Amino acid sequence: MNPIGIIHTSFADKSGAPVQGAQSGGAEGYVEVFPEFSEGLKDIDLFTHIYLLYHFDRAGEVELVRKPFLDDKPHGIFATRHPCRPSGIGLTVVRLLGREGDRLNVSGIDVLDGTPLLDIKPYVTRFDCFPDAGEGWLEGKAMREKPSGRE
Amino acid sequence: MNPIGIIHTSFADKSGAPVQGAQSGGAEGYVEVFPEFSEGLKDIDLFTHIYLLYHFDRAGEVELVRKPFLDDKPHGIFATRHPCRPSGIGLTVVRLLGREGDRLNVSGIDVLDGTPLLDIKPYVTRFDCFPDAGEGWLEGKAMREKPSGRE
Repeated sequence: MNPIGIIHTSFADKSGAPVQGAQSGGAEGYVEVFPEFSEGLKDIDLFTHIYLLYHFDRAGEVELVRKPFLDDKPHGIFATRHPCRPSGIGLTVVRLLGREGDRLNVSGIDVLDGTPLLDIKPYVTRFDCFPDAGEGWLEGKAMREKPSGRE
Repeated sequence: MNPIGIIHTSFADKSGAPVQGAQSGGAEGYVEVFPEFSEGLKDIDLFTHIYLLYHFDRAGEVELVRKPFLDDKPHGIFATRHPCRPSGIGLTVVRLLGREGDRLNVSGIDVLDGTPLLDIKPYVTRFDCFPDAGEGWLEGKAMREKPSGRE
């Protein structure tokens, strides 16, 4: 996995990071794209929301079934967004506040400071928004802090 | 990039594949998860929609600025969903029709038959749906076939 940049946030370690970007209280951060990829940012600032794909570089051991942060029952890793997954790839949608050269200022971000960025894709409502999707085991689960001691 | 499975569709080559899953006319396909990862599928069938992350294994050369399928003006690769991108990672949301063992039957899929699957994540409306997001350069662009001869 070859990073195209680095994600900068105020979340220095796992204990303080929000469970999901959409629930981060609008936490701001920025994405630094390496100069050799900056040409690829042309017109990115036309979009209000973008996907960030990144490498969970501080994730613990992969377990195929485990308790996620928002439930005390175990689920399969592919039925959760947990960081400790075979691909090591994380995905989040953030609001794009603006571009300054190779830097994208974003809000609604949940990733750890210094996370390697793998890709940026535009978020397009007609491709990506499914308001009637079910919530699976998350149905009725309130957001909460990560349970203490849980990886 | 270590695949966790293979995506099976009726799209044998690039010329016939739809531009986006949400515009595929409900095309059906299935995801075959390798047996060593099947435990990780526990409870996936509780969800109606899932993300598939996959490897664009037949993409052409990366160009940081190029004409996408839905416009005749060039845009930066990170402002498009074009397959020829530095990460080589593709992303699509599909409807999960059901699980049969290590096989997930899906609809609304746009990927090529035999594509290596990297990850599956549950799609959760409250994390992933942004109905008010702008459409950037896609604003007002109708869906269309891929222009002839364009990679």
